[in-house]
Amino acid sequence: MVRTHDVCAPATPSAVAGHDLTPLPVGAVALDPARELGAWQTVNRERTLPHVVERLGSTGVLDNLRRLVGESDAPFRGPLFADSDLHKTLEAIAWEAARVPADQPWEPFARAAAVLLARVQREDGYLDSHVQGDAARAPWADMRWGHELYVLGHLVQAAVARERATGRDDLMAVARRFADLAVAEFGPSSTRADGLCGHPEVETALVELYRHTGERAYLDTAAAMLDRRGAGALGAGPFEPSYFQDHLPVRESHEATGHAVRQLYLAAGMADVAAETGDGTLEAALERLWASAHGTKAYVTGGMGSRHRDESFGDPYELPPDRAYAETCAAIAAFQWDWRMLLASGDARHADAMERVLLNGIAAGVSTDGRRFFYSNPLQLRSGHDGASEDTPSERLDWYGCACCPPNLARLVSSLGAYVATGTEQRARLYLYAAGTVRLGATTLDVRTDYPWDGRVEIDVTGPLEELALRVPGWCEDAALEVDGVAADAAPDPDGYVRAALAPGGHRIVLTLPMPVDVLAPHPRVDAVRGCVALRRGPVVFCLEQPDLPAGVPLEDVRIDLTVAPRVGPGVRSLRAGATVLAEGVVRSSEGLPRATALRRSSRPSAPSGMLPGRIALRAIPYARWANRAGGAMRVWIPVDEEGLTT
Amino acid sequence: MVRTHDVCAPATPSAVAGHDLTPLPVGAVALDPARELGAWQTVNRERTLPHVVERLGSTGVLDNLRRLVGESDAPFRGPLFADSDLHKTLEAIAWEAARVPADQPWEPFARAAAVLLARVQREDGYLDSHVQGDAARAPWADMRWGHELYVLGHLVQAAVARERATGRDDLMAVARRFADLAVAEFGPSSTRADGLCGHPEVETALVELYRHTGERAYLDTAAAMLDRRGAGALGAGPFEPSYFQDHLPVRESHEATGHAVRQLYLAAGMADVAAETGDGTLEAALERLWASAHGTKAYVTGGMGSRHRDESFGDPYELPPDRAYAETCAAIAAFQWDWRMLLASGDARHADAMERVLLNGIAAGVSTDGRRFFYSNPLQLRSGHDGASEDTPSERLDWYGCACCPPNLARLVSSLGAYVATGTEQRARLYLYAAGTVRLGATTLDVRTDYPWDGRVEIDVTGPLEELALRVPGWCEDAALEVDGVAADAAPDPDGYVRAALAPGGHRIVLTLPMPVDVLAPHPRVDAVRGCVALRRGPVVFCLEQPDLPAGVPLEDVRIDLTVAPRVGPGVRSLRAGATVLAEGVVRSSEGLPRATALRRSSRPSAPSGMLPGRIALRAIPYARWANRAGGAMRVWIPVDEEGLTT
Repeated sequence: MVRTHDVCAPATPSAVAGHDLTPLPVGAVALDPARELGAWQTVNRERTLPHVVERLGSTGVLDNLRRLVGESDAPFRGPLFADSDLHKTLEAIAWEAARVPADQPWEPFARAAAVLLARVQREDGYLDSHVQGDAARAPWADMRWGHELYVLGHLVQAAVARERATGRDDLMAVARRFADLAVAEFGPSSTRADGLCGHPEVETALVELYRHTGERAYLDTAAAMLDRRGAGALGAGPFEPSYFQDHLPVRESHEATGHAVRQLYLAAGMADVAAETGDGTLEAALERLWASAHGTKAYVTGGMGSRHRDESFGDPYELPPDRAYAETCAAIAAFQWDWRMLLASGDARHADAMERVLLNGIAAGVSTDGRRFFYSNPLQLRSGHDGASEDTPSERLDWYGCACCPPNLARLVSSLGAYVATGTEQRARLYLYAAGTVRLGATTLDVRTDYPWDGRVEIDVTGPLEELALRVPGWCEDAALEVDGVAADAAPDPDGYVRAALAPGGHRIVLTLPMPVDVLAPHPRVDAVRGCVALRRGPVVFCLEQPDLPAGVPLEDVRIDLTVAPRVGPGVRSLRAGATVLAEGVVRSSEGLPRATALRRSSRPSAPSGMLPGRIALRAIPYARWANRAGGAMRVWIPVDEEGLTT
Repeated sequence: MVRTHDVCAPATPSAVAGHDLTPLPVGAVALDPARELGAWQTVNRERTLPHVVERLGSTGVLDNLRRLVGESDAPFRGPLFADSDLHKTLEAIAWEAARVPADQPWEPFARAAAVLLARVQREDGYLDSHVQGDAARAPWADMRWGHELYVLGHLVQAAVARERATGRDDLMAVARRFADLAVAEFGPSSTRADGLCGHPEVETALVELYRHTGERAYLDTAAAMLDRRGAGALGAGPFEPSYFQDHLPVRESHEATGHAVRQLYLAAGMADVAAETGDGTLEAALERLWASAHGTKAYVTGGMGSRHRDESFGDPYELPPDRAYAETCAAIAAFQWDWRMLLASGDARHADAMERVLLNGIAAGVSTDGRRFFYSNPLQLRSGHDGASEDTPSERLDWYGCACCPPNLARLVSSLGAYVATGTEQRARLYLYAAGTVRLGATTLDVRTDYPWDGRVEIDVTGPLEELALRVPGWCEDAALEVDGVAADAAPDPDGYVRAALAPGGHRIVLTLPMPVDVLAPHPRVDAVRGCVALRRGPVVFCLEQPDLPAGVPLEDVRIDLTVAPRVGPGVRSLRAGATVLAEGVVRSSEGLPRATALRRSSRPSAPSGMLPGRIALRAIPYARWANRAGGAMRVWIPVDEEGLTT
């Protein structure tokens, strides 16, 4: 089961050779920088990553390490897991080195960081600047809050990326020493009941390290950590055990609960262990968790985490748009979990979920200029919102006291190519429709498309490919397929794909995915958006934003008139620019209305007579693009004008 | 301005002699134990107060003090302001002594507590068991979080109550020594910029101590503490200055913000200082705060505090029913603030607000048996709610880790009589319609009513009363007034009263307040309950609760059919028993529906065809009575069946 550095994409389960679910080798995909995902990678490389690297220096992340070797006298700064910001950044740098091997501007930084980490690392392999910098702290003393294994997890992922992308093993040497210490301390033979991390992440990382090195102890340690959950070993405190997903054995999990990022990274780790061990009880638990998370606790943007308190999942159908937490890191974790579920099952609904959260919940986390970020991603911001708190700012901030999200975004965007397709030169599957080139051995797929702004996807195939499975998105009706100019059956199979069987040679495949504007009604149990609709076109969710309204019309007074069908409007078709959906609206002033109105004679609630309607054209923009202009109100779910319909 | 112990009700501004806004003397009101408020006082005395006293012993509140005089070796337990639980309880005990002078079962406890507090008190007057019990802490070292002045405030209120109710000055001696220390440390001449408490409460208490003793320094110190706000003296930290209401000078306040209990106690203190100093800028700020709190941030139950995170106010119109925090203590603080606004202005809307929050937001905080409590008071609980956290339990708990609410309820309920009326033997006002007797010098009001379950209020007046002003509740239309059998003008004046002019002698006044079932539509900006209505009758808000539904019908699938007018149902008319409102409903199954549904051909959102309607009789109970039976779902705001109306 040994994996070498050039056959695995970021953090992927093992795959059977020849199977069309085999992850792509590093460097197999080059995305077109003129189109959506490729352009995002360019912004990420040219704007986000330099910004993140600069902040590692200015916010103390590097000084926290330097002081341990006498090169800084600054006190420790940042959250206790600040090291992980560096590790995520090193992972992003590695993927960028693989993506643009000819230009590696951060290689000196990465090399110096590896040297610094090696110098800070203790003799026994331990490496955590927060614990090492505080004489009052001892390693592994507080598994509940210590985050040391979380930091190790990100170090391992960075080291795997660096070795796979560049062949350089300096960071891997550091990571393995720390990982080996964790194996000794918390491996299957450990008697420590609390041998698990209060913040899951290390589980998925250790499984990847197993795939990378072939060293079974890493997999077994990850599995042992899962097995220890649910016994209450993390101890008591003001936070409930469910916050840490320590309230139940993982195999009995049935509901996504607690801190959202923790739950989603844990699920990714469970999927990794299940993929390597074939543990059916884990797989069944994952199916239940997925049904809970995606069926009752996900926003239309793919974001998860309904509560600010504890950054946590709420009850089923508790999905407030205004107080959505929907942390960017939770969205990234959900993406990673679905990737593992996709590779394990092939079920295209997992790719649907990845697409949804990528283009909406994740993309909203960063500004079009790549240097400002949201941590929480609400689906509504009111006029008069108090944006003083970092917790609910009115616009993206250029950094956060807890800056887990920006480097997480950087590592994801730099590795986006890895998630586009899987397979071998004989059989492949295409999931995310992005313009670019996919190389699978002797087979090349040349993809031309303006997706997600246009549903036409042209694929020129050269090489020995025998079958190409194309995902038909769940949002799509009436997909059409053409192979070499001849219409083919485009009814998706139960797993959600249309399949083109190909003879050796060159072919042109054209997949057409019609993209009308969808008007979405919420599930009737989602109380928080009753009486509203959301606009979606293809996979992209739209929103109304105050700057698109006439002066003097607060967004809160706008209703959508559904007697006129929303339609596609003009605009440059890019998340980074200005695609639009147009609709008809009505303004109903709420000024001076009483707080609640008793209806004495009316048989149904109706707007008080003070509401004067005025017709208005509505311009909706992609949700992910909100807060890139002068601030103001925003909403994804738009109240439907019921008055107009009944009078 | 000296007040003696027998002329002031709990915590009231000074009043002009002879004015009909003069607070009642202690013991002036005896409520009928067979009717609503009087029955609540009986439960409070016989069930709640013994329970609270028992818990002071079992949860460490008393041991925290005893250990400081060598009588306990238990470590400190509870929140750092645990002493205040004792002080609030002592206040409740004092009001009970005044209410039932012939039976004072807790007098030995109160006397012993005063002795214990005197022994613990330092030479200089300081008295806080948390700080005194920790050698690493110094007094007044952390004004942001220390709560020492908050503890002092509750001690002062208890001491004033005890001296007024019983004439005993043992607790007052302790309280004044501590208060005098605070005056020396934080009085107007203090140079401490941080001379204010991170948790307001002491301000209103010091003004009351000024009224009680005539010592101007207490008033001046309270005013100085207000004046220091807004300069950022509380320092920085993870909580925003607005959490502590330290983001603006109090005279510039324009929006209710931050931690709700803090904001509301602060407002009460501002109102007290304004009443005694005639400070017009403070009064103007209070009007703005009141308009913000009651116009945009109050639940239909009168509860306040929309966010669990920071137990805080949200943005205007951010009023989620499920995640309502609406802490019981915040409801009590709102009641106290409105009492002060009422006495300062005479405006009956403040009595409306008191009535609303008392019978709904506050009453919900305690079970009918008086021994189980809610801390947060949601307006909706979903089927499948995870009630594991103290923060959002599925039912009232018999105690809390932070047990501020139970003793706060006890002191309020034991003093309810004080809020019924104001005035003198010549001129009086009646606010809360409760059966009982009000004595104002030689004048006696004998009130017979089944209010709030029936709108007929009979008042027999004897004595020299010349004018009686009767509040016409804001919810009421078509009030009728009869004086000695003759109909009188019942149109309320601008302040909200009808006034009966009386010749000396005996009179019978009958006020009739019609109580149809009101169907309330929310303000259109309250997104969280769009498409829903609430049922209210008189001042009482109703709710649907799972135990009243047929087996197998989840509350989430119920809609109300407003083509049939809701009507009053049978049931014993008491918050402690079972009043009901009946309505027609429709069940629309949501089982198996997709998370969101794209509407392709429909011009408006409609329920997916899978929803099979079934007619159902709905039985609504008073909101304050929910969670007294087997647990389950509850909702105040009921979705309106739109399908039925348009098909």
